[in-house]
Amino acid sequence: MNILDIITRKKNGANLSYDELEYAFMGYLNKDIPTYQMSALLMAITINGMNMSETLALTDIFIKSGEQYNISADVKNTVDKHSTGGVGDTTTLIVGPMIAAMGMHMVKMSGKGLGLTGGTIDKLESIPGMNVKLTKQELIDKANEVGFALSSQTKELTPLDKVIYSLRDVTGTTESIPLIASSIMSKKIALGAENILIDIKVGDGALIKTQNEADELSKLLVAIGESYNRNVRTIISNMDTPLSYAIGNAIEVKEAINVLHGKKCPLYDVAVECAANLLSMARGLDIEECRMYAEKTIETGKALQKFYEFIQAQGGRLADMKISDKIIPINANKTGRIKKIDALGAAKLAAKLGASKMTIDDKIDYSVGVYLNVLEGDKVNEGDLLMKLYVNDPNIELSKGDFSFIDIAE
Amino acid sequence: MNILDIITRKKNGANLSYDELEYAFMGYLNKDIPTYQMSALLMAITINGMNMSETLALTDIFIKSGEQYNISADVKNTVDKHSTGGVGDTTTLIVGPMIAAMGMHMVKMSGKGLGLTGGTIDKLESIPGMNVKLTKQELIDKANEVGFALSSQTKELTPLDKVIYSLRDVTGTTESIPLIASSIMSKKIALGAENILIDIKVGDGALIKTQNEADELSKLLVAIGESYNRNVRTIISNMDTPLSYAIGNAIEVKEAINVLHGKKCPLYDVAVECAANLLSMARGLDIEECRMYAEKTIETGKALQKFYEFIQAQGGRLADMKISDKIIPINANKTGRIKKIDALGAAKLAAKLGASKMTIDDKIDYSVGVYLNVLEGDKVNEGDLLMKLYVNDPNIELSKGDFSFIDIAE
Repeated sequence: MNILDIITRKKNGANLSYDELEYAFMGYLNKDIPTYQMSALLMAITINGMNMSETLALTDIFIKSGEQYNISADVKNTVDKHSTGGVGDTTTLIVGPMIAAMGMHMVKMSGKGLGLTGGTIDKLESIPGMNVKLTKQELIDKANEVGFALSSQTKELTPLDKVIYSLRDVTGTTESIPLIASSIMSKKIALGAENILIDIKVGDGALIKTQNEADELSKLLVAIGESYNRNVRTIISNMDTPLSYAIGNAIEVKEAINVLHGKKCPLYDVAVECAANLLSMARGLDIEECRMYAEKTIETGKALQKFYEFIQAQGGRLADMKISDKIIPINANKTGRIKKIDALGAAKLAAKLGASKMTIDDKIDYSVGVYLNVLEGDKVNEGDLLMKLYVNDPNIELSKGDFSFIDIAE
Repeated sequence: MNILDIITRKKNGANLSYDELEYAFMGYLNKDIPTYQMSALLMAITINGMNMSETLALTDIFIKSGEQYNISADVKNTVDKHSTGGVGDTTTLIVGPMIAAMGMHMVKMSGKGLGLTGGTIDKLESIPGMNVKLTKQELIDKANEVGFALSSQTKELTPLDKVIYSLRDVTGTTESIPLIASSIMSKKIALGAENILIDIKVGDGALIKTQNEADELSKLLVAIGESYNRNVRTIISNMDTPLSYAIGNAIEVKEAINVLHGKKCPLYDVAVECAANLLSMARGLDIEECRMYAEKTIETGKALQKFYEFIQAQGGRLADMKISDKIIPINANKTGRIKKIDALGAAKLAAKLGASKMTIDDKIDYSVGVYLNVLEGDKVNEGDLLMKLYVNDPNIELSKGDFSFIDIAE
């Protein structure tokens, strides 16, 4: 086999065989294939696509590039969830405790954020003492003990996905549905939960821009799951506007606690939907009934208690978590209705304050962020509070454009 | 400007501006843009194409990346020719002397071969003493003295084309018509001849596979020429079968001499066509008349004399040129008509004998090659000589498959 032939075949729109994909991708992992050839192949795949059998093959190659934890052998009723990434999206920190409160087990591996969408790991790292580097055995033990355990991705699972993901990030090849599907599912299969829910975020602020792409991705995710005998379901949720009032790290943890206290907002709705679907998948129950059970975990305070148990089990000291006390209030400059809050714009402002990493070398300031006082549709009067900025440097230079993501219609 | 935005725009099929192309390509030359990003961009360009204004822009960026010789300021009636590469194609060594014999001047820069099609420079290097590394002034002086001077490409002209050409070679992005057009024309414009003929080879053995692609390339080449006020014409010739009896290096030089002596074969026809077109372009004469003048240069021996002058002016000692005396004759295994001689297959056999470089580190054996005794359409009897192999190692292992490029129909 010859890498140039493989690249040329994909460039011309051909379908690659399992052997060809393995030769190219494992060759890259083993440093036999240089980066410039893999990046050409990734671009050809991104433009010309991959069919179902290529996508299944690549997922399998990703999985077999590393260890497989197969956690469902050691933990009963395992569920897993994944969100394709949104702004103000801290669903995992709410769903995990809800799952535990319903007697199921969620073992979750999460990523760090890069670019505008924050990672669950970054949010948890704003809690002093929180250990998010668990071994396989620690994950299993804590999941059995609490019902929910979360760790950052290890090097043992799908190492090939990691190097490909990094390369896609710098070569304009992130927006490929089959590559997204292979990346998500390989990690889920290698970890080994029985029931997997994928929350596909669609909108301007998301990787997936259209309903059509979301449908295509959904079909691939379910088919990959079937081929490994896993129960996979998807929900599709909007990501044009932030999912919650908080965009940052510590303030998102605090907002998750607010939702676990019963605060109603889009984040609450998505969390209930995720938890209900996972219950429905695991127990074969009707989804309406499951929504009721899911909400009950919040109403009774059981989910909140599981949240505290989860934090404590992994060493986190919530009382020591810092949110900056330097606050800049931003008020409405006219009276009207909130027509639009653009997710990407809100994330950019939070990033400007230091809430996310724009390059590998950036450091995150966990204590800063944007806390919205309004959501789309709300009415405001001139002078009303639109948002509070939690900042580290009160003299930070901000311009009118930084706030243009909120559009007030008169 | 941001390289990821530029790559993503081309991935999505947008047209790039001059500034975007300059940022990306000059950034690559200056090592600000890493190779993996340029290779992703080249693949996106290869699949999604470039329009006329992008192609003109990229050509201009290539030209301005280095010096411009503008040789027509120092040499009168300058013509240049280029072949997109064929098997047994030593046209330049015949056309150059014909041009000189007709009182025009050809200043030519040629490349080394890589892969299956040999380079003119390699062929000339089979002549001991031949100096193919001329300075600008030497090129001008020898062209004025003899009428024909030839040198390998220097680092001063279009350095950007050189690095991009090398990268395309290893990333499956050679078969892009706009990239081919920019590469060819930037070198021709930077060198500076007034009249430029491009011989587009079409067929299985060539970079350009179809007539449609050839037409598209032809249109781009002429348009680029016009925008620099150059007279550009193209001819399209077949490359399914070798252009001449000889495939190698020294034996191709010898075959060029045979043609200059008047030997008739497809190579003779293409050489006359090239020389006639260049005369017609330079003097504004009717092409039929020009064909007659061109053939006259061979009939009178003037072109042959110019060839010897050219070799001598650049230090070559033809008498010392070696063709191996170890010859393996290959005879027909049946009686019939030669239905097909596949160019690529013939080139592969010559390469196996050592006549061309398959990797950068290979060394060429100038003395070996394949000398065909038949061309397509010829009748042969069982036992008749099909070809002579000039080899260095008489024990070289050859199999039936090495000769399957000749198809004899009973």
